[in-house]
Amino acid sequence: MEYQIWLNGEYVARSEAKIGMMDRGFRLGDVVFDTSRTFNGRIYRLNDHIDRLYRSLKYLRIDPGMTKAEMASVTQQVVERNEPARHQGDDYMVTQIVTRGAFRSGAEEMSPTVSVWIDPIDFKTYSRLYREGAHVVIPKARAYSPMQVDPKIKHFNRLNFVLAELEVKDIDPDAFPLLLDMDGNVSESSGANFCIVSDGALITPGDDATLQGVSQATLLELAEQLEIPTSVERIQPYDVYNADEALLCTTPYCLLPVGRADNREIGDEVPGPVTQRLLAAWSEIVGLDIVDQADSMAAAPA
Amino acid sequence: MEYQIWLNGEYVARSEAKIGMMDRGFRLGDVVFDTSRTFNGRIYRLNDHIDRLYRSLKYLRIDPGMTKAEMASVTQQVVERNEPARHQGDDYMVTQIVTRGAFRSGAEEMSPTVSVWIDPIDFKTYSRLYREGAHVVIPKARAYSPMQVDPKIKHFNRLNFVLAELEVKDIDPDAFPLLLDMDGNVSESSGANFCIVSDGALITPGDDATLQGVSQATLLELAEQLEIPTSVERIQPYDVYNADEALLCTTPYCLLPVGRADNREIGDEVPGPVTQRLLAAWSEIVGLDIVDQADSMAAAPA
Amino acid sequence: MEYQIWLNGEYVARSEAKIGMMDRGFRLGDVVFDTSRTFNGRIYRLNDHIDRLYRSLKYLRIDPGMTKAEMASVTQQVVERNEPARHQGDDYMVTQIVTRGAFRSGAEEMSPTVSVWIDPIDFKTYSRLYREGAHVVIPKARAYSPMQVDPKIKHFNRLNFVLAELEVKDIDPDAFPLLLDMDGNVSESSGANFCIVSDGALITPGDDATLQGVSQATLLELAEQLEIPTSVERIQPYDVYNADEALLCTTPYCLLPVGRADNREIGDEVPGPVTQRLLAAWSEIVGLDIVDQADSMAAAPA
Amino acid sequence: MEYQIWLNGEYVARSEAKIGMMDRGFRLGDVVFDTSRTFNGRIYRLNDHIDRLYRSLKYLRIDPGMTKAEMASVTQQVVERNEPARHQGDDYMVTQIVTRGAFRSGAEEMSPTVSVWIDPIDFKTYSRLYREGAHVVIPKARAYSPMQVDPKIKHFNRLNFVLAELEVKDIDPDAFPLLLDMDGNVSESSGANFCIVSDGALITPGDDATLQGVSQATLLELAEQLEIPTSVERIQPYDVYNADEALLCTTPYCLLPVGRADNREIGDEVPGPVTQRLLAAWSEIVGLDIVDQADSMAAAPA
Amino acid sequence: MEYQIWLNGEYVARSEAKIGMMDRGFRLGDVVFDTSRTFNGRIYRLNDHIDRLYRSLKYLRIDPGMTKAEMASVTQQVVERNEPARHQGDDYMVTQIVTRGAFRSGAEEMSPTVSVWIDPIDFKTYSRLYREGAHVVIPKARAYSPMQVDPKIKHFNRLNFVLAELEVKDIDPDAFPLLLDMDGNVSESSGANFCIVSDGALITPGDDATLQGVSQATLLELAEQLEIPTSVERIQPYDVYNADEALLCTTPYCLLPVGRADNREIGDEVPGPVTQRLLAAWSEIVGLDIVDQADSMAAAPA
Amino acid sequence: MEYQIWLNGEYVARSEAKIGMMDRGFRLGDVVFDTSRTFNGRIYRLNDHIDRLYRSLKYLRIDPGMTKAEMASVTQQVVERNEPARHQGDDYMVTQIVTRGAFRSGAEEMSPTVSVWIDPIDFKTYSRLYREGAHVVIPKARAYSPMQVDPKIKHFNRLNFVLAELEVKDIDPDAFPLLLDMDGNVSESSGANFCIVSDGALITPGDDATLQGVSQATLLELAEQLEIPTSVERIQPYDVYNADEALLCTTPYCLLPVGRADNREIGDEVPGPVTQRLLAAWSEIVGLDIVDQADSMAAAPA
Repeated sequence: MEYQIWLNGEYVARSEAKIGMMDRGFRLGDVVFDTSRTFNGRIYRLNDHIDRLYRSLKYLRIDPGMTKAEMASVTQQVVERNEPARHQGDDYMVTQIVTRGAFRSGAEEMSPTVSVWIDPIDFKTYSRLYREGAHVVIPKARAYSPMQVDPKIKHFNRLNFVLAELEVKDIDPDAFPLLLDMDGNVSESSGANFCIVSDGALITPGDDATLQGVSQATLLELAEQLEIPTSVERIQPYDVYNADEALLCTTPYCLLPVGRADNREIGDEVPGPVTQRLLAAWSEIVGLDIVDQADSMAAAPA
Repeated sequence: MEYQIWLNGEYVARSEAKIGMMDRGFRLGDVVFDTSRTFNGRIYRLNDHIDRLYRSLKYLRIDPGMTKAEMASVTQQVVERNEPARHQGDDYMVTQIVTRGAFRSGAEEMSPTVSVWIDPIDFKTYSRLYREGAHVVIPKARAYSPMQVDPKIKHFNRLNFVLAELEVKDIDPDAFPLLLDMDGNVSESSGANFCIVSDGALITPGDDATLQGVSQATLLELAEQLEIPTSVERIQPYDVYNADEALLCTTPYCLLPVGRADNREIGDEVPGPVTQRLLAAWSEIVGLDIVDQADSMAAAPA
Repeated sequence: MEYQIWLNGEYVARSEAKIGMMDRGFRLGDVVFDTSRTFNGRIYRLNDHIDRLYRSLKYLRIDPGMTKAEMASVTQQVVERNEPARHQGDDYMVTQIVTRGAFRSGAEEMSPTVSVWIDPIDFKTYSRLYREGAHVVIPKARAYSPMQVDPKIKHFNRLNFVLAELEVKDIDPDAFPLLLDMDGNVSESSGANFCIVSDGALITPGDDATLQGVSQATLLELAEQLEIPTSVERIQPYDVYNADEALLCTTPYCLLPVGRADNREIGDEVPGPVTQRLLAAWSEIVGLDIVDQADSMAAAPA
Repeated sequence: MEYQIWLNGEYVARSEAKIGMMDRGFRLGDVVFDTSRTFNGRIYRLNDHIDRLYRSLKYLRIDPGMTKAEMASVTQQVVERNEPARHQGDDYMVTQIVTRGAFRSGAEEMSPTVSVWIDPIDFKTYSRLYREGAHVVIPKARAYSPMQVDPKIKHFNRLNFVLAELEVKDIDPDAFPLLLDMDGNVSESSGANFCIVSDGALITPGDDATLQGVSQATLLELAEQLEIPTSVERIQPYDVYNADEALLCTTPYCLLPVGRADNREIGDEVPGPVTQRLLAAWSEIVGLDIVDQADSMAAAPA
Repeated sequence: MEYQIWLNGEYVARSEAKIGMMDRGFRLGDVVFDTSRTFNGRIYRLNDHIDRLYRSLKYLRIDPGMTKAEMASVTQQVVERNEPARHQGDDYMVTQIVTRGAFRSGAEEMSPTVSVWIDPIDFKTYSRLYREGAHVVIPKARAYSPMQVDPKIKHFNRLNFVLAELEVKDIDPDAFPLLLDMDGNVSESSGANFCIVSDGALITPGDDATLQGVSQATLLELAEQLEIPTSVERIQPYDVYNADEALLCTTPYCLLPVGRADNREIGDEVPGPVTQRLLAAWSEIVGLDIVDQADSMAAAPA
Repeated sequence: MEYQIWLNGEYVARSEAKIGMMDRGFRLGDVVFDTSRTFNGRIYRLNDHIDRLYRSLKYLRIDPGMTKAEMASVTQQVVERNEPARHQGDDYMVTQIVTRGAFRSGAEEMSPTVSVWIDPIDFKTYSRLYREGAHVVIPKARAYSPMQVDPKIKHFNRLNFVLAELEVKDIDPDAFPLLLDMDGNVSESSGANFCIVSDGALITPGDDATLQGVSQATLLELAEQLEIPTSVERIQPYDVYNADEALLCTTPYCLLPVGRADNREIGDEVPGPVTQRLLAAWSEIVGLDIVDQADSMAAAPA
């Protein structure tokens, strides 16, 4: 059974979904999106994701033609529609994509292209990394500056991520890129926030050159509950190499320990004790064991 | 009669051409393109455009699965195929678009999405501007830096252009944006190079933060023929406001005089004498009067 | 009755006050100043303003030839002298201006030009804005960097503000400029600090590229009293557009809600709830209703 | 006999010329100017200076209310009016100053404040320096960036020059400041262009962060006549210290050899051979020996 | 009696210690070090220093061939070995130096050069400065950026410090340099951290462009004990000139009050009250009066 | 027979040459050097190298205690002294090293440490690379800025080169690093200049962030003789990847073709035609076939 995605009001099979090649979303990257995921089939923090989507839209002055409530409702509906296709124990990502629409010819009104997606989570990859730790490499390709396009919006103009990944794979085929901003400070991975643990405190870079991660927000809330001190600081590669622990966090995998950065081992054990506590607490609030789920799904026949 | 475009080996009606929404070209902006135009139905400087396309591909390590010669041949073929649809006196743009392909699932090989496009030229707009001069406004949104994605490649990651245009339209609905680079120097418009005439010399910014314009190359060759001195210099807004003449150059309209920049009148007359000589010489080498063509086509029934 | 200003020890009618055109204050911008205002005719936080004036003087090594106490005393005296000219319910600004003096010829000692000014407050403009919200536009003209002249000193070298205002008026004739610093972060308006409210907290940019506003200090003290959390953060245009509330604060009008930024509406209502609480508390400590005063004075015959 | 200056159509004694303290020229630095000088009482390259003045005005959108021809004519008139006061063998500077005018109250139209000045040339200082060489010190205070206020306009917002001079005098009381731009490249002195001679060629920084010096233009023309090669290059302190010769050029003294930079001796002799040839040629075109004039005037009773 | 230093396992007289001129530590600056000091002959916070040394090593991927414990043990041993040479009341610095080793020829394995040093403390200089205050001058030479070599590692590549000192001595022969980072913010002195006291709070720059000073860490701990608020902020020269107190802190002298910065007097008295409290508390935890020791040793015959 | 090096007037065996560990050259990197090489045993362009050495010394205000002539004479002498040790057909590098001297204790005068070195040339490595082309990788570690230490001086503070090499070896063990400057433009390799050939012209970066290479000067002179056009331009990675040819040039190997940059093949053949012509011309002026010599020496028994 294939997932059905919602495209401007219609359902189409996921593999068949297409966009007009004169859509500004394709031709100009004039598109924003946001991604939530389910736990046990229920969408997690949907409103936070919808709010962020609408912040992106406002920044770009794109009118999606739908209120936040309507967007949330369609998203719920798409999840429900796909519930029969969900495997036992599985979960997926749910993504809203909004482009400004196709180029108008003459007096025609431009109207946005809106779609809502179901995408599988790559548990096979994550399962291993929860235990061994992810690798990161800091490439020379840089994050965009807010003077160009603010990294706080979520969009598809990611050629710099593409370049970063090419470069990173040359060094370590398993590594994720960890981009520096234009000032040389650590910003984020391609699709995940990054933070370190140092002297027992969880340290995140500010949001000058990173997405305002919903998972990162969860992480900070969990840290508060667990009485782990947190702070926002500019981080340089030195801090990464010498961190006690480092971690990536994003919607599909929640958080991953980082075991290696620029070919230097990070910390004494992977995952480190703070990472373990955070992951355990996270599992608790979402009502399933995050690592166990990844392991089971990785072991399941495709 | 609608134009037919070539898409991975098939012809489809231009308005029907679609791309899979899981193509990296859409999802990551992992796509490059190049655009030539015809004069009297014949493609102008095709090889220069194909060369630039392959420079973009090499920079990004995208393998289009076609040699330069094959790409040129398909492009020619597309033009021939559409010749019947071309109106008397009309011309069009011809664009190659290459994405890295759709996300692979599992062991599948990724293969590029290649298309070749016919697009009409907006003579209606240009006709007026050849005489009155285009307006430019310098927005605060900046060009990308080569530390992120080199502006010398031609791609669809243009959210900063979108932001620039929104900003520019707030000031002057008729204006084109003229972006500064990260150092505050004039780079280019969204899809056109920019240069000024000062004390009789044609001055262009370097290619640090601009496309290596084929039209700009033509312009420089014409200047040489006409014994107009040229130089490459960093240009700031002061230089634009105080230029004797300013002009935009790009494939669809060749060159346009600029009459107004940030609400300051440029030069004493529009088009200025150097611009006029360049435009006349250009008309000569392409075998038609560029302004006359725009006027006739603008006057033609849609 | 015209206000009398104090100029190097003499009183002169405000409209007659002149400075020698060979004064370094005119010829080099070698001048600092500071501005307080009265409430019910009494100067508010004079010592804080005098302290800041002397910080500016020290930075520039200008010796005003007067102690802080003497400067405060002259300022008080000027207010008293002008008390008869103050209308019922009115208030005004009180400004000290200190230049390094006129260019010396030969062995002559240079001596500073010191004046103390009474200036009317533009209640007519503010009255409307307390209710409708001010507009801000972020121009491309940038704040100075501390590598050049520290924005923490208060001086008259404001050509960048002049350029910013010209640019801003092209977009929105009613808007105030909101300048970015050289790194692309929000600094301040021309003569006012700027801050945002987000998730209930009052967020101000640091003082790297802004004046150390006395009104901003009042605002932070009021926030503390009202248990509104505050923090100092780098702010980018995205944060402004997506703020729950935004406000300008400066001596003449205390604070103004911001209703529009770069043609995007800010927040859900203007003034927002936090702004209202702050304004109410401010009215309380100064012993008059700030908005009411503006309304009455705006309604008064000129 | 005191010089008479022209102020908004009236002549006033130079020491009596005053400007209203509510003029934007004083309060905001909203003012531009330009300075020529006489040789044998005749103004040199007046049109070049007037052109540059009007470029500054256009950049700032100040309307002086006078055409270039009228401005030139008033300037000539001022020189003629002051001819009787000129000493035998003496010359002076002639300066136009234009402010945007005083702050308007209500509906009043703002009108510019225009003045034309006669100022003595400091031959006493220059006389010695033509022989011994000027000293320069590179302070940490930086030139403005074109992102703020373009250094190509001539204005009175010079607090950064004031800071630079304070700093420079701490190191060497006789030195002129030589400012770096925001990128760390040599820009200009406070009121003079700077260039070096290296391997027989005259090297000037570009005009990104310097005034477009009329004296520098003269210098380049003389170099061309003398077949001294010239080039425009970014210059760093290393290049200054290791130059064969270095020189300052500006309207009042034409050019001065530089003998010392940051306490390092420049070149083998002062003035160096290229400097000497340039100075000789310059004397020739202006019809008097530049150094002799300085010597005589320096020796003259005050 | 001369101090004996430990060099790759051997003891040699301090004045005789030499390194091969083909060692990468000399030829490439491929070397890190760390410095502790003794109080009453006992090493203070040795583990913190060793930890920092190993962070430097990890950053550079130099393998010292010794565990942290071994390094600490050798360091202790060196102190014990030199105990007989220590004068009554005296103390000294203990420094570990690790180079990557000499250039290999052919298949030879490269092995690190490790040495542990005893160096006398310059009490003569400090004695006076505890009372009069040190002078600082902010030169134009800048700190390295983490994009080049992270200033958080302790190494011998200090040509920028050398240039800074040359420049500073030209202004004030007694002054220490206080370097700005590439963004124009205050970083550190050559071998000491810098902080200010403002409104009763101790303010330190972040560690983006400074060493993570162990003495600075002590200072912050003492501040906490004494209930002196602390914060991490970007500091510009304005903040230094207008600080209530300023101080330098580093291992050999613990902390010194700063009395003068760029020829401006700092604060009202030197040492200021906060500095005095910190110094008193520091003396307490190290078990000797820091100033008295300096005075006695300064008075002692050489 | 081992080479003898000259150290402060004495000859010592090369492997025995040592420097005091309290020398500022070791402890602060307070040291400059320059390297020439011999062809057929005769030093090539010695005066150019000595001139550059003295420019470095002047920049740092180090007095070597020797005139240029004396330095040249000692260098010649060292070569003569080592002539008996030179193998048939072999050549070597000759290097002057000057440190400011050891730290003074008390009133002692500091005196420089001067040495002159003979070092073998690594023909074994170069032999292969003349044919196959060298690889370069552009790391994230950056060149120093002239605001810190001007890259035009030749010194031993090379931790950023060390970091660059570590990073580069992770990608391609055979590659040389090619560093970007702080603005993201290509500067130089660790110890070699870099240039590209594009459309038949030889393009070099300016000397803002590179050594003023003597080999690069030779290259430009040869280009002039061969009527190969040259220009100085800012170069970005795009230009490197898309160059027709690229090459490294430095004293020990003269020039090497570059065959690969960031894992992209450069040009169509290696060495390219322009490189071949330059190498042939170079062989001619130095009186031996550069590649043949490398081949013979590589084949010789160690």
